[in-house]
Amino acid sequence: MKLLEERIRRDGQVLEGNVLKVDNFLNHQVDPDLMFAMGEEFAQSFRGNGITKVLTVESSGIAPALLTGLQLHVPVIFARKHKSLTLVNDLYTATVYSYTKKVSNEISISKKFLGADDKVLIIDDFLANGQAVAGLIQVCEQAHAEIKGVGIAIEKTFQRGHELIKEKGIRLESLAQIAAFENGQVVFVDDKEQANAE
Amino acid sequence: MKLLEERIRRDGQVLEGNVLKVDNFLNHQVDPDLMFAMGEEFAQSFRGNGITKVLTVESSGIAPALLTGLQLHVPVIFARKHKSLTLVNDLYTATVYSYTKKVSNEISISKKFLGADDKVLIIDDFLANGQAVAGLIQVCEQAHAEIKGVGIAIEKTFQRGHELIKEKGIRLESLAQIAAFENGQVVFVDDKEQANAE
Repeated sequence: MKLLEERIRRDGQVLEGNVLKVDNFLNHQVDPDLMFAMGEEFAQSFRGNGITKVLTVESSGIAPALLTGLQLHVPVIFARKHKSLTLVNDLYTATVYSYTKKVSNEISISKKFLGADDKVLIIDDFLANGQAVAGLIQVCEQAHAEIKGVGIAIEKTFQRGHELIKEKGIRLESLAQIAAFENGQVVFVDDKEQANAE
Repeated sequence: MKLLEERIRRDGQVLEGNVLKVDNFLNHQVDPDLMFAMGEEFAQSFRGNGITKVLTVESSGIAPALLTGLQLHVPVIFARKHKSLTLVNDLYTATVYSYTKKVSNEISISKKFLGADDKVLIIDDFLANGQAVAGLIQVCEQAHAEIKGVGIAIEKTFQRGHELIKEKGIRLESLAQIAAFENGQVVFVDDKEQANAE
């Protein structure tokens, strides 16, 4: 998605350790018009798949997931990262390790919102090691819901997440695919393909 | 807003201690079309106020704030509840006590996203004791930003939040105003007014 790639190039900051900071349009300050365009892309990709629920995890997955759900006209569920003290038996849960924050979180969703009749589209802002998506997949498996696909705003193709989803035979659509960071600049898969074609 | 009141009546659950559970359409599973309609209401109310930023706090404020920002075409900032370990000097922070969860959280936003030129619309899902909104107001004050108003999805008019905002001379728009809970049912301010008029 050119619009997102251009925005990353313009406003993204490459920090040490291959961390891409996009807190001025994606995950702290959010550009709603960009989110709408991203939601449109995801909705177009997965329309016709009979999606019944969009699933994400709080907090930065909510914006792209919501605007996808808006355009598919289906409910959006955000998994919570902090398990409620009550109602533990009524939850599907999975443990998610964050390499960035170096902490494990238990993510959970209420059983009443996901079941065997559901066809789920998982949406998240980032795919790197794939731990958050793996947790959301586990939650869907517990609910016996069918996973129709995973939609990611920004994918780092050189980390494990991509393989992890593909190995499960799940369709993956990423709007911006980062091939590498070189000299503090983002190199997209699209750039490499273009360079190879020239 | 009739649409929201009807939805609360149909899908809300009144729990012990005057807690209204709306996790099936507002703050766990989210109805994007309802959020869009709510965003439209807020945008209509505050259009013409020169709003430059919509401000909320993660996680359940994000959905209504985002769809308000979408319709005002301005960025949406969500304050974070868990202070980052780095960059502490670059943050505006406030302490927010949650009566529901009985914990204090420090909320924070990056200084670079809010300044003296900003005209801010604060949006949140619930107004009860007003602690979250008070924290967001503090953050705006630190930034010397102008607060043009507060938009709330569901207000419990019998708790302290309403007064707290009014005392500061800030405009408050709530889409559904709860006057009381009676026998496990929600009584809206609109119902009372209607009863008085009859």
